[in-house]
Amino acid sequence: MPIKPQILKGTRDLLPPAMILRHHVIDTLEAVFERFGFEPLETPAMEYAATLEGKLGEEERLMYRFLDAGERMVALRYDLTVPLARVIAMHQHELTMPFKRYQIAPVWRAEKPQKGRYREFWQCDADIVGTKSMVADAECIALMNTGLRELGFSSFKTLINNRKLLVALAEYAGVDRGLAVRVYRAVDKLEKIGPENVREEMLEYGITPEAAGRVLDLVQTEGTSRELLERFQRAFAGQPAGLQGVRELQEILDNLEAMEISDRFYAVDLSLARGLDYYTGPVYETIVEEPKIGSLTGGGRYDELLGLFTGTPLPMTGTSFGLERIVDVLQEMHGGGLAGTTSEVMVTVFSPELLAKSLRLAGHLRLEGVHTEVYYDAGDSLGKQLKYASRKRVPFAVIMGPDEAAAGKITVRDMASGDQRTLSETEAAGIFRAWVERRGTMSVPVVVE
Amino acid sequence: MPIKPQILKGTRDLLPPAMILRHHVIDTLEAVFERFGFEPLETPAMEYAATLEGKLGEEERLMYRFLDAGERMVALRYDLTVPLARVIAMHQHELTMPFKRYQIAPVWRAEKPQKGRYREFWQCDADIVGTKSMVADAECIALMNTGLRELGFSSFKTLINNRKLLVALAEYAGVDRGLAVRVYRAVDKLEKIGPENVREEMLEYGITPEAAGRVLDLVQTEGTSRELLERFQRAFAGQPAGLQGVRELQEILDNLEAMEISDRFYAVDLSLARGLDYYTGPVYETIVEEPKIGSLTGGGRYDELLGLFTGTPLPMTGTSFGLERIVDVLQEMHGGGLAGTTSEVMVTVFSPELLAKSLRLAGHLRLEGVHTEVYYDAGDSLGKQLKYASRKRVPFAVIMGPDEAAAGKITVRDMASGDQRTLSETEAAGIFRAWVERRGTMSVPVVVE
Repeated sequence: MPIKPQILKGTRDLLPPAMILRHHVIDTLEAVFERFGFEPLETPAMEYAATLEGKLGEEERLMYRFLDAGERMVALRYDLTVPLARVIAMHQHELTMPFKRYQIAPVWRAEKPQKGRYREFWQCDADIVGTKSMVADAECIALMNTGLRELGFSSFKTLINNRKLLVALAEYAGVDRGLAVRVYRAVDKLEKIGPENVREEMLEYGITPEAAGRVLDLVQTEGTSRELLERFQRAFAGQPAGLQGVRELQEILDNLEAMEISDRFYAVDLSLARGLDYYTGPVYETIVEEPKIGSLTGGGRYDELLGLFTGTPLPMTGTSFGLERIVDVLQEMHGGGLAGTTSEVMVTVFSPELLAKSLRLAGHLRLEGVHTEVYYDAGDSLGKQLKYASRKRVPFAVIMGPDEAAAGKITVRDMASGDQRTLSETEAAGIFRAWVERRGTMSVPVVVE
Repeated sequence: MPIKPQILKGTRDLLPPAMILRHHVIDTLEAVFERFGFEPLETPAMEYAATLEGKLGEEERLMYRFLDAGERMVALRYDLTVPLARVIAMHQHELTMPFKRYQIAPVWRAEKPQKGRYREFWQCDADIVGTKSMVADAECIALMNTGLRELGFSSFKTLINNRKLLVALAEYAGVDRGLAVRVYRAVDKLEKIGPENVREEMLEYGITPEAAGRVLDLVQTEGTSRELLERFQRAFAGQPAGLQGVRELQEILDNLEAMEISDRFYAVDLSLARGLDYYTGPVYETIVEEPKIGSLTGGGRYDELLGLFTGTPLPMTGTSFGLERIVDVLQEMHGGGLAGTTSEVMVTVFSPELLAKSLRLAGHLRLEGVHTEVYYDAGDSLGKQLKYASRKRVPFAVIMGPDEAAAGKITVRDMASGDQRTLSETEAAGIFRAWVERRGTMSVPVVVE
């Protein structure tokens, strides 16, 4: 009896049109990562559960854990950051520090599946290990900027904050040390729920109305990034960690200026906290404003995580692109114009006698670098063959009939317009070569521009 | 207490030098796949266990199976072929047939780990669904040929056989139908264990000495591929399936000739069986002769697999590159000459005052497409900075000291030779651009050619 073919909820098959766009995004980001001097690293999907646990907070209950055949408790990786820390702990002395790596790979979380949320999804991370220099943090922000621009986004802003300022903010406002985390969990929602609800949340946790007022007052200060930092510097006078946090952000701004990143792309924002427990310094997140789609990338500094493995902390900072979201957004933005196939030319087969000529021609086109298919069933009518190319949205078909064969020519048909021209093989190769050259220059893979 | 950082046996961390070579192999094969008109497809790592089971024979006991949080019995994919069949069964009517897909992705098997054998390893498959045409099988062989040549292999041979001939061989030799599988399991080892051991193995299974003699006689026939097929045609006269198998191989040879694949790269070999149960037609395997490293790719036709899902078979044929083995072999062939980093230039930082100039320069180099690092700690001596570049094997360092800054120039140091030249930024960009252009033209990624 046949087995019913089915797939687990929260997992997906990515058919070619989806994969073409996805490859484009991954290739673009890989190229940007390497241009910034990040190197590729890969870690196993499966690790000892004990390696992955105890780093991420209560979200860890979503980890896929099971006993393997050797009765070891193993888990599928939940993110790419904890495995990186494990690699550093094991290979610290083989690696030249500072070490810059990127990894683009799937992770698994037993989330409740919903639109845009999957149980198996890809992360796309770049991290710098072994330096406290704010050049590294600025580079992560520049990297996000370059990556998003190369993907075709032009209107976005990176919000920048520092966990040290959030600690100082609580102290400045006179909030009990034990409640500091409540302050930044609450202000993190400012943009989403508004100041009144943030105030309410703080009061619920026992923060006094005066303290809540001082928090909201400072968080809602208006001004340029430089002006905000001056205000925070005055507010945190006498708090060494807070002042250190302000200096770090000043250095980041200096570095971004030197890197010639326009300040329309970033802004200091004291309300940004980010979710992960392990951040210790600068944090940042990029919000795309046009189209309004929220956060696409984010990251921060986490100087304590490695200490969980080695007992000795080593500074780390890094950023992550939301690959699934980026792909979904580009899909929505470009819709039907996206390429439906990687194939560029389909060579038809006029008759079984002319099959060899079609195969030879296909070989020549492939040597030119053209993505070439040959129609497989020599007995089918030309109409049926062209219909295949059309359904698949292959941009060109080539016809090599008895007339063409006798004249040493081929007929090239533009499948979109239906225009046909009979050309020498050399002339046709020129057309296709121009097509091949354009392939890499489009900001998204489209059929016709 | 710190957690001991460790990794599961049979899994690996791939540090940057290993990843650079691996990316090169994957990029090369992807480009070849697309040139042959194969499109990318991706399936989840995790599937219902029932989907994957019952297709591969007793090897299936190596599958990683476990209950997920919803008490579903799930498994990590064991290969890429069974998931492909499941995709076809589910999406047959959305896909234009024939459908050509490639997938390069990890699979998991709880094998006993040993040199070159891993529990998590990558497969690299290309398959054609929905045609019985021998053009498809020939294309798979041409694909393996092109792929290996582009990876830099020049001395290899694809052995070609047909499962139909192996069935006919048993009948021709007078072997009981029930023992036919023993015949081809035995002759498959001919190259490895020699004719006397093959004979012994057949006798052990109750095949008569006469039958074993006839088997060995036909299998050891010498001659060109065409001559062998003529001999088999005579031997299998009266066996329609056997004759059909011979005709299929003749067509494959015709097609390979038309594709201008030199016959020094392939040969019919009646002893080739291949391991998987599901093959039904042509099978092939490529043996690299120089260096002597055995099989790197293989594949075949499996027209019945899809029927296990849908009840209705659909023809499928395909090939698989042994990615892990290819990478290991290239590593051995090129050894120390391989690139150790993706970075091409490291910009030093002469002093904290000159940091901004170095950052600006790095930005310009990145715009040119140069893979550029900046040294992070402005306070470190130039010697320490150059040592970092040297340990990491970054090919060039750039120095921007006060003299250079005043003159609007930069000093470029070739890290291998130690040669230094002071140039304008435009002149330097020209040198780096030439380096960037060479990047894609090397058959393996090396530091210096």
